Amino acid sequence: MRLESKLPEPEQGVDTRFLADWSGLTRGIPASLYRPRSVEEVSAILQHCNEQGRPVTIQGGLTGLAGGAVPADGDVAINLERMNAIEHIDELEGVMTVQAGATLLAVQEAAARAGWYFPIDLGARGSCQVGGNAATNAGGDRVVRYGTMRDSVLGVEAVLADGTVLSSLTRLVKNSAGLDLRFLFIGSEGTLGVITRLQLRLQPVPAPAVTAFAAAADTNALARLLRTLKRAPGVDLIAFEFMSGEFVRAGARLANQSCPLGDDYPWYVLIESAERRQDAGFSSLQQALEKTLEEGDILDCALSASLTDTEDFWRIRHSIPELMTELKPTVNFDCGLPWVEMEGFVDRVNAAMHERYPGATHLFFGHMGDNNIHLMSGPHRSEDMHDVEERVYAELRGRDGTISAEHGIGFIKKPYLGYTRNAAELAILRQLKAVFDPKNILNPGRVLD
Amino acid sequence: MRLESKLPEPEQGVDTRFLADWSGLTRGIPASLYRPRSVEEVSAILQHCNEQGRPVTIQGGLTGLAGGAVPADGDVAINLERMNAIEHIDELEGVMTVQAGATLLAVQEAAARAGWYFPIDLGARGSCQVGGNAATNAGGDRVVRYGTMRDSVLGVEAVLADGTVLSSLTRLVKNSAGLDLRFLFIGSEGTLGVITRLQLRLQPVPAPAVTAFAAAADTNALARLLRTLKRAPGVDLIAFEFMSGEFVRAGARLANQSCPLGDDYPWYVLIESAERRQDAGFSSLQQALEKTLEEGDILDCALSASLTDTEDFWRIRHSIPELMTELKPTVNFDCGLPWVEMEGFVDRVNAAMHERYPGATHLFFGHMGDNNIHLMSGPHRSEDMHDVEERVYAELRGRDGTISAEHGIGFIKKPYLGYTRNAAELAILRQLKAVFDPKNILNPGRVLD
Repeated sequence: MRLESKLPEPEQGVDTRFLADWSGLTRGIPASLYRPRSVEEVSAILQHCNEQGRPVTIQGGLTGLAGGAVPADGDVAINLERMNAIEHIDELEGVMTVQAGATLLAVQEAAARAGWYFPIDLGARGSCQVGGNAATNAGGDRVVRYGTMRDSVLGVEAVLADGTVLSSLTRLVKNSAGLDLRFLFIGSEGTLGVITRLQLRLQPVPAPAVTAFAAAADTNALARLLRTLKRAPGVDLIAFEFMSGEFVRAGARLANQSCPLGDDYPWYVLIESAERRQDAGFSSLQQALEKTLEEGDILDCALSASLTDTEDFWRIRHSIPELMTELKPTVNFDCGLPWVEMEGFVDRVNAAMHERYPGATHLFFGHMGDNNIHLMSGPHRSEDMHDVEERVYAELRGRDGTISAEHGIGFIKKPYLGYTRNAAELAILRQLKAVFDPKNILNPGRVLD
Repeated sequence: MRLESKLPEPEQGVDTRFLADWSGLTRGIPASLYRPRSVEEVSAILQHCNEQGRPVTIQGGLTGLAGGAVPADGDVAINLERMNAIEHIDELEGVMTVQAGATLLAVQEAAARAGWYFPIDLGARGSCQVGGNAATNAGGDRVVRYGTMRDSVLGVEAVLADGTVLSSLTRLVKNSAGLDLRFLFIGSEGTLGVITRLQLRLQPVPAPAVTAFAAAADTNALARLLRTLKRAPGVDLIAFEFMSGEFVRAGARLANQSCPLGDDYPWYVLIESAERRQDAGFSSLQQALEKTLEEGDILDCALSASLTDTEDFWRIRHSIPELMTELKPTVNFDCGLPWVEMEGFVDRVNAAMHERYPGATHLFFGHMGDNNIHLMSGPHRSEDMHDVEERVYAELRGRDGTISAEHGIGFIKKPYLGYTRNAAELAILRQLKAVFDPKNILNPGRVLD
């Protein structure tokens, strides 16, 4: 569908908040900024830029960590923040129609007001936009239960580089009438089109969570524990966040609190179960953990007895900003690996890093249910950053791993994409880019050169 | 990746079992049949066919209902049945590596032997192949709990038209390193490549099911019941199969059994909950249904008290072959609609059909949790078939519906694709086809002209 041209006036003198994302990367000053109010305006802007061959940077809430939404000098920047309407909620079936610029928090709150739950959640919820969440296939803390953004998006409306509006706004769970096109845009980081509207699948509101903190000897034991909890009667696992002992000790120290368990264990995990209990006094999670403790897969555990306990547990897991400040400049990794590869990966990376960078600290943590292992390593001199990255990514090769489980490639990880994707895959990615954006105006230089 | 040519000898004198699928459609006799034993052979065959511009028909278990795997006169047919190895199971994490020609039943059984569960299930399980299940994004009876095949496939290996082997065999739950390519093949019905290998996500073995049969006044009441059950503490819904009163009465009569409830209700639903009960005497499903009965959303209900009851309930739901025989020739629909549209759709279709075809019977049934409503209508004269289809599909227009929720488009539904997909979507589908298969050798004439 081509829409009648409604090219709005661009803004000159772009505010500094549109120049960087949360990675801190800056690349220059865009020539102009558009903040369109409708899909018709997005279409007119792209048609105009495509005719002139002008590079476009597409922006959501600018909370990304890969630099994908950071404009270069002379770019046309398009920020979706004014297209933020929650357009419709089907309260019977639990489906929301929303414009791409709505914040994740606004979506969560609107779902709650309608008696439903939107399960994607991340620290940036108040700033990040659902269009950006879809474009990067956002994950967060609840993937083990609800999947990534891909699993919550039923339909997509997107504007292609030439201004064509592609409305693929199905809201059906199941549809086999030709290839599903939403997956061309989810995870494409704005390189194939501008997402303007979404149909989101809402979930029943989960029961209040039971929270626990457990200690284990190695990541293999954590994997066995996760398998056990996924099968345990009555447990409905919504979080399984692992942390190395070093991470927990540093996080607790910076939070001025003691470790919830003895502080000399090699690994810890924060667990949440949204149990639909018949009997308020009984916790299936506790029962399962006690059995695991007897069998030896965990070394100790503590159940939260109060909201204060729960907040203490999570404060350690969420001490990332403080840890980054203490260890800066850091290199931050977002790797993915099968469970069976994690222990070896940690051992090899630890050995390589301690040998080459004995003065730095290396903290492992992540979402085991999603195969996602983060590593924060620092301090490092800027001239060493590339070497640090190469040493870590080298340990993923041939082990079914990924260099980005949830942050995306953007600019920052682009040099390393070949560690994860093979030549045939990269060729297809380039072909798709050429079909959808032949003049290479949409987020040029991101993901691929 | 291009592999060294290993072109096998084709078979001449093709057995009749390779000429039709379960729709009964036949189109001719293929010139030759290949049953390759390796991805290298598939690559060599496709390279050969592409160079010569020979049309290829790709076959799994030939259990489809849309004619997609039925070869035309002179085609090269490729059947994957010899590539049926279960190559690896990661028993810790629950991931299976399997060749595309393994039957669904073999996959289910191998998962069970390893202490896991593969949740896709359909009547054709003993014959259909997992590669075909992926190519058509198969659904079945458990989608309300586990999603479609798309949700169970973590990675895909496929051979492109020119023989390129595209290995995108990720086995990670979460991966944001460039666009995910598996979705180009899942649901593409063999038009973009030949799926040769899959990484499948396995699930914990569910608890034994509690089964119930309930009656309701209309589909809106069924929708409210489904919403209630999705939220009910302790209920873990794995099937919610609705049937019109006329369907149940005819099915019970053909099965020589009485209706599980009074036989004069307008709608019925078969419900299964895989409850992880702490206490064997207690059923959360029963409790939820009793509450719904009091509130009036259901008119009556019966819980299965024995395996015999459960089999009786399912025998009615599975009386499709007998019903098709009694009403033949039938036209069979596989529509999808939002819940809020179902009641109006049924009313309008019923009115239109009874007015135009007063001598025919029209039976509605389907998977409400998947937005999937089937209609079997017959007997019809062959010259009326097209008119019957047009009248039904006309009622989907503008109502967010689909002409195929799970069977695919193939040949048989191709004339009606425009009822469901708009011009911009069709243009993209054609562009993708041209990129991946420029000589149009892969399943030509399916889905699109």
